[in-house]
Amino acid sequence: MSNYKELKREAFEANVALPRQGLINLTFGNASAADRDRGVFAIKPSGVDYEELRAKDMVVVDFEGKRVEGDLNPSSDTPTHRRLLLAFPAIGGVVHTHSSHATAFAQAGQAIPIFGTTHADYFNGDIPVTRKMTEAEIATAYEWETGNVIVERMNNLDPLDFPGILVNRHAPFTWGKTVAKAVEAAVAVECIAHMALMSLQLAPKLARIEPELLNKHFKRKHGADAYYGQSSK
Amino acid sequence: MSNYKELKREAFEANVALPRQGLINLTFGNASAADRDRGVFAIKPSGVDYEELRAKDMVVVDFEGKRVEGDLNPSSDTPTHRRLLLAFPAIGGVVHTHSSHATAFAQAGQAIPIFGTTHADYFNGDIPVTRKMTEAEIATAYEWETGNVIVERMNNLDPLDFPGILVNRHAPFTWGKTVAKAVEAAVAVECIAHMALMSLQLAPKLARIEPELLNKHFKRKHGADAYYGQSSK
Amino acid sequence: MSNYKELKREAFEANVALPRQGLINLTFGNASAADRDRGVFAIKPSGVDYEELRAKDMVVVDFEGKRVEGDLNPSSDTPTHRRLLLAFPAIGGVVHTHSSHATAFAQAGQAIPIFGTTHADYFNGDIPVTRKMTEAEIATAYEWETGNVIVERMNNLDPLDFPGILVNRHAPFTWGKTVAKAVEAAVAVECIAHMALMSLQLAPKLARIEPELLNKHFKRKHGADAYYGQSSK
Amino acid sequence: MSNYKELKREAFEANVALPRQGLINLTFGNASAADRDRGVFAIKPSGVDYEELRAKDMVVVDFEGKRVEGDLNPSSDTPTHRRLLLAFPAIGGVVHTHSSHATAFAQAGQAIPIFGTTHADYFNGDIPVTRKMTEAEIATAYEWETGNVIVERMNNLDPLDFPGILVNRHAPFTWGKTVAKAVEAAVAVECIAHMALMSLQLAPKLARIEPELLNKHFKRKHGADAYYGQSSK
Repeated sequence: MSNYKELKREAFEANVALPRQGLINLTFGNASAADRDRGVFAIKPSGVDYEELRAKDMVVVDFEGKRVEGDLNPSSDTPTHRRLLLAFPAIGGVVHTHSSHATAFAQAGQAIPIFGTTHADYFNGDIPVTRKMTEAEIATAYEWETGNVIVERMNNLDPLDFPGILVNRHAPFTWGKTVAKAVEAAVAVECIAHMALMSLQLAPKLARIEPELLNKHFKRKHGADAYYGQSSK
Repeated sequence: MSNYKELKREAFEANVALPRQGLINLTFGNASAADRDRGVFAIKPSGVDYEELRAKDMVVVDFEGKRVEGDLNPSSDTPTHRRLLLAFPAIGGVVHTHSSHATAFAQAGQAIPIFGTTHADYFNGDIPVTRKMTEAEIATAYEWETGNVIVERMNNLDPLDFPGILVNRHAPFTWGKTVAKAVEAAVAVECIAHMALMSLQLAPKLARIEPELLNKHFKRKHGADAYYGQSSK
Repeated sequence: MSNYKELKREAFEANVALPRQGLINLTFGNASAADRDRGVFAIKPSGVDYEELRAKDMVVVDFEGKRVEGDLNPSSDTPTHRRLLLAFPAIGGVVHTHSSHATAFAQAGQAIPIFGTTHADYFNGDIPVTRKMTEAEIATAYEWETGNVIVERMNNLDPLDFPGILVNRHAPFTWGKTVAKAVEAAVAVECIAHMALMSLQLAPKLARIEPELLNKHFKRKHGADAYYGQSSK
Repeated sequence: MSNYKELKREAFEANVALPRQGLINLTFGNASAADRDRGVFAIKPSGVDYEELRAKDMVVVDFEGKRVEGDLNPSSDTPTHRRLLLAFPAIGGVVHTHSSHATAFAQAGQAIPIFGTTHADYFNGDIPVTRKMTEAEIATAYEWETGNVIVERMNNLDPLDFPGILVNRHAPFTWGKTVAKAVEAAVAVECIAHMALMSLQLAPKLARIEPELLNKHFKRKHGADAYYGQSSK
């Protein structure tokens, strides 16, 4: 019997949502769900086919990086997830994909400029991109350092205002209060990247959305004055 | 028992058609169906997952904006739908999506130029785009004012000749005699936007379709001389 | 009881293949299957939803254009099909779609340049494009004249060497020995158009395939020396 | 009873995976699985519809090119597969597709530049492209010579470091230790091509990935220091 049945179920649901949403081919990508009270998170095992994945295969790791339940190796990206969960206390889950359009921006080392309300419904500005990693960062604890360059770039940004980032030359990471929210952010980032790419084709010099419209849309969904959805804040 | 069972069913069918047609990710987008005799329309509740949506969840609102049936909050875009239903007496339904290609044009603030007969089968000219909204419009009754800039732009255009529009920086709204027709227009707008984007890649200075061909195709399907389909007009 | 059960079945299968292959949205597009011995062809009824279409709904029309079986109106494009079946005795079926990438070329009035072997497996050169139609042609028997501009452009080309064409400002028509072959050509044209568009993005001045390679690939599949597939030609 | 039941099953699974992964339309493409101990490989029959394909239809051919089991003609590309299996002793399967984005690069005669870690997870550098074939090569044993230009281009490259190539004007071939790995490489090549095309749109002069990052990602998955997945290398 697992001591983390619900947490593993939550992580599993998030992981299998990724290929279903068209965000993932092959075994790229992974999702983790944290239980902060117990100081652990559940994450996908490394290199397992999505079609064969089962909830019980999820690996439970503590915040020091020690495996506390599961026979399989956790995702090789586990240190990045751990770094983000440690740095951003407000989040409960992390998602990593190589979704095509977002990855095209990451490869080009370009932030995704905020051009419309679809973007503003999820992000309070451009989707940021990290600096390139140094040779030393790559040579040592690569995945942990990947987390570090994300944290460095997020410096003065609220992770719930900016629920994702592009790692330079690599691909997007997203997060949220729950791992389900992190999956939603991953879908949004891919969709926003696709639209931005096409808007740039139509208007290569396109200016960003007007601040008042960004502000309006972001606040429709976030914060004390949100009025989107069914909750009664 | 609902007093609006059929109307809610009609709105529900339209709403669930949107993700099935690939026009919608996440919870973006909504459809409304009007019953003009009874002075009401049924619309999607705000922020509910499409996979969980049921016909009975549709919210019925009257033309003054008062909820007359349903426990959930109506879509936050309800005032835009209401504004359009009030302004265009010939229409019976409104659809809003963030479909990717149409939204790319909206973000760029560009009308979709009419380049071929696919477009002319649905629109009697370019798919128009609104002006940007002012700070005052955004700060006050934003969704109602979104309807107002649409109505302003449609000024001298027949809404059945132009069954949709792009809201600047935002995304498309479409409409029709019935909400099913509005869904069809939403599919057409997305498809037309995709084709126009690619035609512009091939020929950046491409001229619009010749007026006689536009006229021919539009009238094959619309008005007194239509001869497309099975009706005996 | 129908006198044309098999022919209608054949036309039906071709018509429903079009949306399944992603070539068609809404009610755009149609396929016809000819029985030359009996001097008739079966074609899709006008404006009927693909999801509701049944084999028995196919309309049978003779080569003079008279409906010989069926209660519904035949496709409004029937005169174009009839014109092509009359002009090209070697073909047994015609398909019309508004598939997105091919239509983008048609709207731009550009032939699809032959850049690779995928193209050469199906066409013995560029996929041609018609001239624009005149005001007089559009004003009179528009659909018949659409067939005429196709026939005019095909002038010195063998319809089995060039199993399709783009109608300027409009969309592709394809054909083949059977309607199933015409469907295959429609899939190929869309796929070829997509690849050509991307190759042009990569290399705007890209030269056409070398004649010896074109020749080799086309003849692998066509004519006396074909050695592709299972037949013993 | 077949003497090669397992091998044919393996080849069959690979072949039907190709359309399911969106890599193949129509009858383009084929996969082969080799049994080096018995000196044979199983390959798809020529021009058979994927929907009708059965495991027992696979054709078994020996390394001299003689059919040793099966009634159907083997794929017309069989000599290319045979050439590659002979040249690269480390591989156990070959896949050929006309997947759209990879083929767009092949048609343009351009290698796919390595821009990010998705690419580096599979290839130890650019995805190479062959030179064009000569008239003499095309006129004689065309498919065998297609293999030869691949082998020539791979000259000083390890086929497990570069599990695929683009044939100029044609399309990709991929390979791997098993045919399942070759299918995975085919999916990766298509995905990498799509991303590279978009990155080039965003940044036409984009530099390649830094060598230290390429090295890191490639070695995470390949060779003595690999630590991705569940194996205990």
